[in-house]
Amino acid sequence: MSFLIDGLQYANWSEKIFRQMRAGGVDAVHVTITYHETFRETVLIIEKWNRWFEQHPDVIFQGRTAADVQLARDTGRTAIFFGSQNPSCIEDDIGLVEVMHTLGLRFMQLTYNNQSLLASGCYEDEDTGLTRMGRQVVAEMNRVGLVVDMSHSGERSTFEAIEHSTRPITISHANPASWHAARRNKSDALLRALGKSGGFLGLSAYPHHLKDGGGCTLQSWCEMAALAVDLMGSQNVGIGTDLCQDQPDSIVEWMRVGRWTKAIDYGEGSADNAGFPAMPDWFHDNRDLAAIRAGLRAVGLDEATANGIMGDNWLAFFDKSFGAQDVSKKIRNAAE
Amino acid sequence: MSFLIDGLQYANWSEKIFRQMRAGGVDAVHVTITYHETFRETVLIIEKWNRWFEQHPDVIFQGRTAADVQLARDTGRTAIFFGSQNPSCIEDDIGLVEVMHTLGLRFMQLTYNNQSLLASGCYEDEDTGLTRMGRQVVAEMNRVGLVVDMSHSGERSTFEAIEHSTRPITISHANPASWHAARRNKSDALLRALGKSGGFLGLSAYPHHLKDGGGCTLQSWCEMAALAVDLMGSQNVGIGTDLCQDQPDSIVEWMRVGRWTKAIDYGEGSADNAGFPAMPDWFHDNRDLAAIRAGLRAVGLDEATANGIMGDNWLAFFDKSFGAQDVSKKIRNAAE
Repeated sequence: MSFLIDGLQYANWSEKIFRQMRAGGVDAVHVTITYHETFRETVLIIEKWNRWFEQHPDVIFQGRTAADVQLARDTGRTAIFFGSQNPSCIEDDIGLVEVMHTLGLRFMQLTYNNQSLLASGCYEDEDTGLTRMGRQVVAEMNRVGLVVDMSHSGERSTFEAIEHSTRPITISHANPASWHAARRNKSDALLRALGKSGGFLGLSAYPHHLKDGGGCTLQSWCEMAALAVDLMGSQNVGIGTDLCQDQPDSIVEWMRVGRWTKAIDYGEGSADNAGFPAMPDWFHDNRDLAAIRAGLRAVGLDEATANGIMGDNWLAFFDKSFGAQDVSKKIRNAAE
Repeated sequence: MSFLIDGLQYANWSEKIFRQMRAGGVDAVHVTITYHETFRETVLIIEKWNRWFEQHPDVIFQGRTAADVQLARDTGRTAIFFGSQNPSCIEDDIGLVEVMHTLGLRFMQLTYNNQSLLASGCYEDEDTGLTRMGRQVVAEMNRVGLVVDMSHSGERSTFEAIEHSTRPITISHANPASWHAARRNKSDALLRALGKSGGFLGLSAYPHHLKDGGGCTLQSWCEMAALAVDLMGSQNVGIGTDLCQDQPDSIVEWMRVGRWTKAIDYGEGSADNAGFPAMPDWFHDNRDLAAIRAGLRAVGLDEATANGIMGDNWLAFFDKSFGAQDVSKKIRNAAE
């Protein structure tokens, strides 16, 4: 049996959801903890997570290394890995990259839809690629072991991140645009380049990224997974559901609008479909994850490939991504 | 040969000083990183330390556990353990206790001379003991493994911290008042209670804490060490020099005045002796530490006791103090 890892969730966390993770046998989840929040606001959110870890040590704990996924399996719990969908948490301060990594951040998107200090988002009219600070921050993220995530970035910025980063990057939650054309889905050319660089794609189950939206069948989704394997290589694809369970619609508005506009922005939605979209009927919560395996086999993927997508590939990616590159930590790790 | 550990320094850090630590064979130093700085300001100081760790990995690294002292010895480096001399860095937010511990803080004074949100400082007219928040924060510090340091606190507050804390506390840099009467030195009754609780005293070489000030001889200082052993027990005493090497006098003013007054406060100094006092001629920098051993033997302390004071006692204290008490980390440590 492979590991079971979801590479992106942003739920309205509760004990109910943590117990659903256990009921679903989920070994690890990359959770979004912050979008547009400042450093101090992000620390407040980490404090909230610390309380959850303290209150529910029987079901969840904070993951920091790939070995924590095995520990989760061994102790019957789910390892929670922190991620940020925007670089707001590092403000204009490159020193916060290492500080956030020390606090457990393992993924950071360089942009969320808009231009950031680091790169261009996928909703900007012009994508100008990595900024001066963006190149410096990518190098620093490489050094400390914080994964560059380009899910919400523009295509040029993403190509430049692949090129500039000395370690593999990820698109943690998106799908091939050749399966379903959407602003957030990615071109075949980009996915091929990502796979070639050792980078990683987490396949989304968020309706706006799906052919037929919430009506997308498991079979269609798994055919898309097979397409992604063709584009990327069988080791470079996993799951990144983008599950936003139990969130009120005010949250999707915060995700889209933050504090950058006084107007409204619908992102992937629209005025008459402004809230969170209804999920496909085969995926409502963490208890539904394991059943994807049979769907992958049913579309003809072999067992090793299916196991890879279900979690083994993410685990290998975690293993090569979360450790530091700098000399002192190398000395330290060697002696440990 | 014992370990060599200094339980308190606040130097104007530089590569020169780091290399003096190595020349002196110092395995570990508890360094003060913050006094009156807010959380965000303290993080900026941690960022500065991160750069030093990155630039000088051959001589220093950040210590987090007692095992890091052995690692320092094995790799010929000095482990740097962070401490705060005031609780300003946790502001009014108990959640910052765990966050600061995650960032590496291992000691925190509940007060620095003045009343804080947690307890009373040794310069207040009234010592009202631990506050409501103080009791909660001590419990939280116990839970995560952040050592309560009462060096600059009032006597009643210190007795109450000993009583309320479920783990041994420290006075990291002070001396017995029965040897030299000074506001910052501690009564025999307090030191006896501290020793009885398993608590720890780091012996100061800061002139204001010394008989004859900067004229104090090594022999006199070592006789004081023997007195401390009599009061506290041979396992509960170490070195905490309070070395403020290379600091300009503007820094001692910041330590004393912070932002709490528009006037001037001389603390242990006076208008005609406002700056840093001159150190004893036998202790100027880290290269002078090792010679204290012979002084301890010369006043009649046996080898094991001298070794304990030089560093072995601090190491044992680190070992029982820096780990978390909560269930999830226990599960985690057990499986590691």
